[in-house]
Amino acid sequence: MPKLVFIRHGQSEWNLENLFTGWVDVDLSEKGVQEATEAGKKLKEAGIEFDQAYTSVLTRAIKTLHIALEESGQLWIPETKTWRLNERHYGALQGQNKKEAAEKFGEEQVHTWRRSYDVLPPLLKADDEGSAVKERRYANLDPHVVPGGENLKVTLERVMPFWEDHIAPDLLDGKNVIIAAHGNSLRALTKYLESISDDDIVSLEMATGQPVVYDLDDKLNVVNKEKL
Amino acid sequence: MPKLVFIRHGQSEWNLENLFTGWVDVDLSEKGVQEATEAGKKLKEAGIEFDQAYTSVLTRAIKTLHIALEESGQLWIPETKTWRLNERHYGALQGQNKKEAAEKFGEEQVHTWRRSYDVLPPLLKADDEGSAVKERRYANLDPHVVPGGENLKVTLERVMPFWEDHIAPDLLDGKNVIIAAHGNSLRALTKYLESISDDDIVSLEMATGQPVVYDLDDKLNVVNKEKL
Repeated sequence: MPKLVFIRHGQSEWNLENLFTGWVDVDLSEKGVQEATEAGKKLKEAGIEFDQAYTSVLTRAIKTLHIALEESGQLWIPETKTWRLNERHYGALQGQNKKEAAEKFGEEQVHTWRRSYDVLPPLLKADDEGSAVKERRYANLDPHVVPGGENLKVTLERVMPFWEDHIAPDLLDGKNVIIAAHGNSLRALTKYLESISDDDIVSLEMATGQPVVYDLDDKLNVVNKEKL
Repeated sequence: MPKLVFIRHGQSEWNLENLFTGWVDVDLSEKGVQEATEAGKKLKEAGIEFDQAYTSVLTRAIKTLHIALEESGQLWIPETKTWRLNERHYGALQGQNKKEAAEKFGEEQVHTWRRSYDVLPPLLKADDEGSAVKERRYANLDPHVVPGGENLKVTLERVMPFWEDHIAPDLLDGKNVIIAAHGNSLRALTKYLESISDDDIVSLEMATGQPVVYDLDDKLNVVNKEKL
């Protein structure tokens, strides 16, 4: 029975400052590094042996993965990074303070942007400052596909092809897989795996740095879920 | 014109203790971490933008790569790990003190093992303690292929298929490639790239943590070589 483990990256410097982060490549805070280390120790204690690691192209998830793998003695396993596991793109809100945004746009509006399944945030245009279209790390991506802002629905839609083409085949092959990613890309996968409704998924909280371990059957149904 | 950069991993804990290391998965020393950090700063100053990273399945090379990439702002680039870039397997000498080995086997014999191109060290058998055959990280490798000890010639012969199938195609595709590896796997690639003789290659020293930058033409001939 294959095991699938999710780890949401540890605290980032912008989590700490209460800024909308999204695709901005913010580093882990010191606490975030500790959380990743702790996650690695738990994985070692649990004795989980991974065959494949997946992560986003954002430093905070990649570092969380590397720290946790090293701590559990498995830094040598194959690793693939993909934009499809990135955090939800927060559009023009990226870099803004969440409290200041609430003062500017109204609490209700900001709450809707944060907690609705299918309402888009204000979008960044391709030539706006901070647009991902300008970043070298997305240079191989069709510019029409680079988002200017996403809701959870859109995030799920771009995560799923990677599940279908990479993660699911590995699991069906009997491999144990670890995914170090973000609150919303992991919410998307959780929604799919656990058949959670659009309404319920937006309020699902994922603790930073806490490994979530799924045992799956050979049809990829969830047999057991455990938080370490 | 594609750029190819070699980094030999920073000092390891066993370099420090003067032990034969080979495929034993020894960590970087504190100085080794500093060397990798320094390498990353130099790469950043040089402004080299990588498209692909390759490393071995040994922690000291992987960590050197991660530290150098993070320091140069490129932790997000694709990374592939392969046993073919591992250090030369030092056979039954692995874990032995170099000075003690000289006392046991004679200085000349140890010098021959260390510095000849095609003399094999005493070999480990598949069921010997410390045999790589028993390690999970080589479980996907045909057990007949897992070495019990290598000389530089054998090392080169198992490095080259990876050059031919992965590194060279990337370079021919115009990608800038970074390889974080080991004294002998990098000697093998250097021998090939610079057409160095069997006699001369064994005495070529590669400094730990110093990036070596090659500019190649579109036939993969070396146009320029620079040590940062």
